[in-house]
Amino acid sequence: MTPRDADTLVMARPERGAIALDRRALPAIGPDDALIRVRRAGICGTDLHIVSWNAWAAGSYVPPVALGHEFCGEVVERGRDVTRLEPGDLVCAETHIACGTCSQCRRNRRHTCLDLRVFSKLGRGCFAEYTVVPQQALRRVPPAISLDRAAVMEPFGIALRAVMEADLRVESFFVVGCGPTGLFAVAAARALGAGRIIAADPLPFRRDLALAVGADAAIDPQAGAYDRQVAALTQGEGVAVALDTSGHPPAIRDALACLSPGGTMFLIGLPSKDVAFDLARQVVLRETSLRGLYGRRIDETWMAAEKLLASPSLRIEPILTHHFPLAAFDEAFATAQSGQAGKVLFRFD
Amino acid sequence: MTPRDADTLVMARPERGAIALDRRALPAIGPDDALIRVRRAGICGTDLHIVSWNAWAAGSYVPPVALGHEFCGEVVERGRDVTRLEPGDLVCAETHIACGTCSQCRRNRRHTCLDLRVFSKLGRGCFAEYTVVPQQALRRVPPAISLDRAAVMEPFGIALRAVMEADLRVESFFVVGCGPTGLFAVAAARALGAGRIIAADPLPFRRDLALAVGADAAIDPQAGAYDRQVAALTQGEGVAVALDTSGHPPAIRDALACLSPGGTMFLIGLPSKDVAFDLARQVVLRETSLRGLYGRRIDETWMAAEKLLASPSLRIEPILTHHFPLAAFDEAFATAQSGQAGKVLFRFD
Amino acid sequence: MTPRDADTLVMARPERGAIALDRRALPAIGPDDALIRVRRAGICGTDLHIVSWNAWAAGSYVPPVALGHEFCGEVVERGRDVTRLEPGDLVCAETHIACGTCSQCRRNRRHTCLDLRVFSKLGRGCFAEYTVVPQQALRRVPPAISLDRAAVMEPFGIALRAVMEADLRVESFFVVGCGPTGLFAVAAARALGAGRIIAADPLPFRRDLALAVGADAAIDPQAGAYDRQVAALTQGEGVAVALDTSGHPPAIRDALACLSPGGTMFLIGLPSKDVAFDLARQVVLRETSLRGLYGRRIDETWMAAEKLLASPSLRIEPILTHHFPLAAFDEAFATAQSGQAGKVLFRFD
Amino acid sequence: MTPRDADTLVMARPERGAIALDRRALPAIGPDDALIRVRRAGICGTDLHIVSWNAWAAGSYVPPVALGHEFCGEVVERGRDVTRLEPGDLVCAETHIACGTCSQCRRNRRHTCLDLRVFSKLGRGCFAEYTVVPQQALRRVPPAISLDRAAVMEPFGIALRAVMEADLRVESFFVVGCGPTGLFAVAAARALGAGRIIAADPLPFRRDLALAVGADAAIDPQAGAYDRQVAALTQGEGVAVALDTSGHPPAIRDALACLSPGGTMFLIGLPSKDVAFDLARQVVLRETSLRGLYGRRIDETWMAAEKLLASPSLRIEPILTHHFPLAAFDEAFATAQSGQAGKVLFRFD
Repeated sequence: MTPRDADTLVMARPERGAIALDRRALPAIGPDDALIRVRRAGICGTDLHIVSWNAWAAGSYVPPVALGHEFCGEVVERGRDVTRLEPGDLVCAETHIACGTCSQCRRNRRHTCLDLRVFSKLGRGCFAEYTVVPQQALRRVPPAISLDRAAVMEPFGIALRAVMEADLRVESFFVVGCGPTGLFAVAAARALGAGRIIAADPLPFRRDLALAVGADAAIDPQAGAYDRQVAALTQGEGVAVALDTSGHPPAIRDALACLSPGGTMFLIGLPSKDVAFDLARQVVLRETSLRGLYGRRIDETWMAAEKLLASPSLRIEPILTHHFPLAAFDEAFATAQSGQAGKVLFRFD
Repeated sequence: MTPRDADTLVMARPERGAIALDRRALPAIGPDDALIRVRRAGICGTDLHIVSWNAWAAGSYVPPVALGHEFCGEVVERGRDVTRLEPGDLVCAETHIACGTCSQCRRNRRHTCLDLRVFSKLGRGCFAEYTVVPQQALRRVPPAISLDRAAVMEPFGIALRAVMEADLRVESFFVVGCGPTGLFAVAAARALGAGRIIAADPLPFRRDLALAVGADAAIDPQAGAYDRQVAALTQGEGVAVALDTSGHPPAIRDALACLSPGGTMFLIGLPSKDVAFDLARQVVLRETSLRGLYGRRIDETWMAAEKLLASPSLRIEPILTHHFPLAAFDEAFATAQSGQAGKVLFRFD
Repeated sequence: MTPRDADTLVMARPERGAIALDRRALPAIGPDDALIRVRRAGICGTDLHIVSWNAWAAGSYVPPVALGHEFCGEVVERGRDVTRLEPGDLVCAETHIACGTCSQCRRNRRHTCLDLRVFSKLGRGCFAEYTVVPQQALRRVPPAISLDRAAVMEPFGIALRAVMEADLRVESFFVVGCGPTGLFAVAAARALGAGRIIAADPLPFRRDLALAVGADAAIDPQAGAYDRQVAALTQGEGVAVALDTSGHPPAIRDALACLSPGGTMFLIGLPSKDVAFDLARQVVLRETSLRGLYGRRIDETWMAAEKLLASPSLRIEPILTHHFPLAAFDEAFATAQSGQAGKVLFRFD
Repeated sequence: MTPRDADTLVMARPERGAIALDRRALPAIGPDDALIRVRRAGICGTDLHIVSWNAWAAGSYVPPVALGHEFCGEVVERGRDVTRLEPGDLVCAETHIACGTCSQCRRNRRHTCLDLRVFSKLGRGCFAEYTVVPQQALRRVPPAISLDRAAVMEPFGIALRAVMEADLRVESFFVVGCGPTGLFAVAAARALGAGRIIAADPLPFRRDLALAVGADAAIDPQAGAYDRQVAALTQGEGVAVALDTSGHPPAIRDALACLSPGGTMFLIGLPSKDVAFDLARQVVLRETSLRGLYGRRIDETWMAAEKLLASPSLRIEPILTHHFPLAAFDEAFATAQSGQAGKVLFRFD
């Protein structure tokens, strides 16, 4: 029996914290859709922005908004044209859906497709017992991957993307911001042969998590400028690669000064205002680079994530700090916002 | 008979325009040095900064300063340990001299050597009948290369470096600033298979030079923001690669917005103050990159420059707009600063 | 009025030269198909193999075989799900159709898709007034590209692929075999900034074509071993890159010896028997590489071909030596096999 | 007091096994030389070839030959121009000494320098209490590296070179031949994030070592063709990268068939005769590559080796199976040739 409706967590009104469980009718299962019974779902920074109803959220969404886009679950039913999946398959979702024909897609840059559709804008949500997902977004989960790991494939992927682009083998790596993305980057870098890994975060809880998943040192911005702290930890050499996940302008500017000549800083965090750089001294004369990263290469990053998440050499379990049932959504969101958490997951049994 | 002294153009005192020809004793020829009779020498932006005695020059040099570092000339005499050159050889100079043993050199990044010595700081100058140069800086000029081309090997090299790093084959290219470096970049990009080339400069004289050496279009900042002009010239696509040679903050910021998603902006120009960017919208979400470039890869860039300057498919002669005898140094510098010149050369007969 | 049948050139029986024009019913236009009125179609080496009915053809095809897969034409009618094309559009075809979901496709290697479908095996042919083509294979031709150039997009693409993989900028290039693929490679290399280009072919007619489209020298195997001839033309240095389009074992082995240390030989030609190499001396100690190439990267190569074929800096017209009406198929095939031709095209008016 | 002579192991006469300890005068310490007290020295395959006096050795050396080139030791005395080292420094040697000015060196390919000098041809040897080494070959050993690890920097480097060129992160890797080079490659690949690692060797002792340093499986050629065994271990996918260290023609040919489309086989082993390939089926149509590797990139590989050998994440100790005093040279060589050893070291106390 196909369910017709499902408890779904929604941002009900355009005001801070206006979330509630809603028994909603499921959308019709289109020919290219699959109905998914959700097993695990993770709270993303995007969800936190929506629930806080900040300026970005107000400019991007119209309530009611079904929340959640990081998940794994089982195929329950499938549309007419769904040929690659079977009922019972465990799946997760590459939430970026490319058109396949624009100039970016033709260049094999599907992740910056000019007509990109994003699951979180389809009005479906995954903080729900069931959800409906286009086949094109779904990926079967390899058997060696646990439910918890499958649930974080998507956010792990963006961190892995940075690590894969960087080629950190034997190289030093500086990760700014130890939220889930920064922590996943530390863990991936450790598994993929990085040299010295230094993480930075103002919160001791997060610094401890960074050390638990492979950082060699975890520094506190209150202990002094990053460039002096990093110099002290690298015999004055600086790092080959930095990654900003914080979006915090002073941190970004300071991290740039930690690079050795020829080094690269990858940027994933989204600063809410302009960031000013001393390009002459910090970029041109020292030949450094700043590289923005958005999403995952489709499907290279996902394939790499499948392989790495199936491997015992990757250590991410300490990052998955909390599990809640959907009914405890208030506590789950409060935990995710507390600074005393890594990735917070909903568990559906 | 080895000359003992030589007319040499020097910045005599720490004040704007204080240049004069000085009959100076040549430095002793050390075991690793060669005495060079200069044949052609080019005025670089660095020379203009010194002669204008701006803040950067005042912070970097102590008068008297022997001017000039771009040149070609003939080997007249050589020190005891100079084995790779013969008297009569035509040579030019890679003015960056690397230590060979620091961590940057060991990474094959000699151009950002941590102990880099620079010819222009050795007190020798090439706006002179004769000069003394360390063997390590000298490169024999292949026979197919004219004196004029040999004289610009060094500044051409920095432009070529950007073009080689970029891989512009069939790709669109936006060059900001049509001084000699920007013009050399246009010419190199055209010879190396670039797609559409768009140049920008406020001065009509320079825009005309850009068109003469291969730009498809040359735009004026006064005609509107770069991003709108470039969009109109690229069917809305933007460019894959931009190169800033201007160091002008508004131009750099505007050029960044001309990139297609995934595009790269190379930076050679040295901004005199901080430049602020909307990293979220222009860099992270669109996956663009900013890459500083300094100098030439040693010796890959020089080898590539030798091959390209020996080829008739490269068209740079329109850039070499003026030749002066050394005695006309006042006119030469005035011309170089006028905005009505490309590269200005001293010719020694 | 949609045509129901069309004159189509077929290999009628499994015997050498058994080709004939057949008035055949067109296949039904499926939901993803477009009916195309052919404007130009080129004879490929594959067509010659089929018509000669050699061992490879006999093992790969079952007569009757509709011939031809290189073409351009106009969309006449389209199936229900064809959304990206309009009647009247000029199109050509990327004849390799990838599944999109296998491990090679997920790695962005669609051209070596594990379930690759090839137009030439669909039983449709393009040596015909009309043909029916899956939308996925069709690409709209940019307006700046002539009918003749549009017709050779596919074979030009494989040559361009090699040139793009190689990065020949300022580097020397040795092309073995001056059939259409080798000649297209010479032309593309010249347009994309190659240094010295040396071509080789036993036939004077083809060597002349190579010189006409940009080779600096064209050598004859009967004049001596390639390695000695190439050494003489490169001051003893050898070449950085070689490309074999001949599939001729002695030529391949000899070309390998023409490489400088660190050089690469790309292989497109298909040898009909094993090729033996002195790996120790020619590959390991000199750090050379052998790289097989098959097809075009989908869709990067096609995009690059569109840009380059739209550019006047590419010179390929001398390669398109002959045009025939379809009725003159016997003469067209004889010409293509004569060694006195470049690419032979059918023209439909 | 500087020693004047030293016990040195030499190949005394041109006949199999003619090795003996010889009390020889040390060569004069030139201005660029350092006198080294040897602490550890490893037996290389080259030493085994010389001692067996096979055709290659007879064609390459003239007895008496001082044996040994892999070592670490302490600087005892230094020539006039040796500025980068101090007496007491622990050093090891990059045994390839490049000219710095040939076209290969200028391309940053010093390891294939056209005038390469090799320590093993300088007549000095390191199976000796003391030896004299040009400063240019010496590298200071970082403090975190043990004597044993320092002694194998050079042979470890060649294996690491292959792993670094390959970029094995999350990718499958097939290593053919489990002598020291193959075993080092397994260990380096494991530390640098490789996916599944499969090793092959006919000797059970060596297969066990491969498993001990990180291989997931170790296969025996007698158990069937490599391609079938590898397919069974990779769900039919094959491997992305293979490395041959055996030089055994049937093994090389068979390993090529283990690659997935687009895969690469690196070749380090030196086959003593030609190897024949089915280029059409195995290389062109499947887009595989064969890449010869010789030596280490100077100095990138050495820097990477320093970093990796200083890291506890690298596990190579099981490979260093035997230590002998120099006087037991007969037993040491017999052990190295027995097939029951990894790397055999001489220890000097």
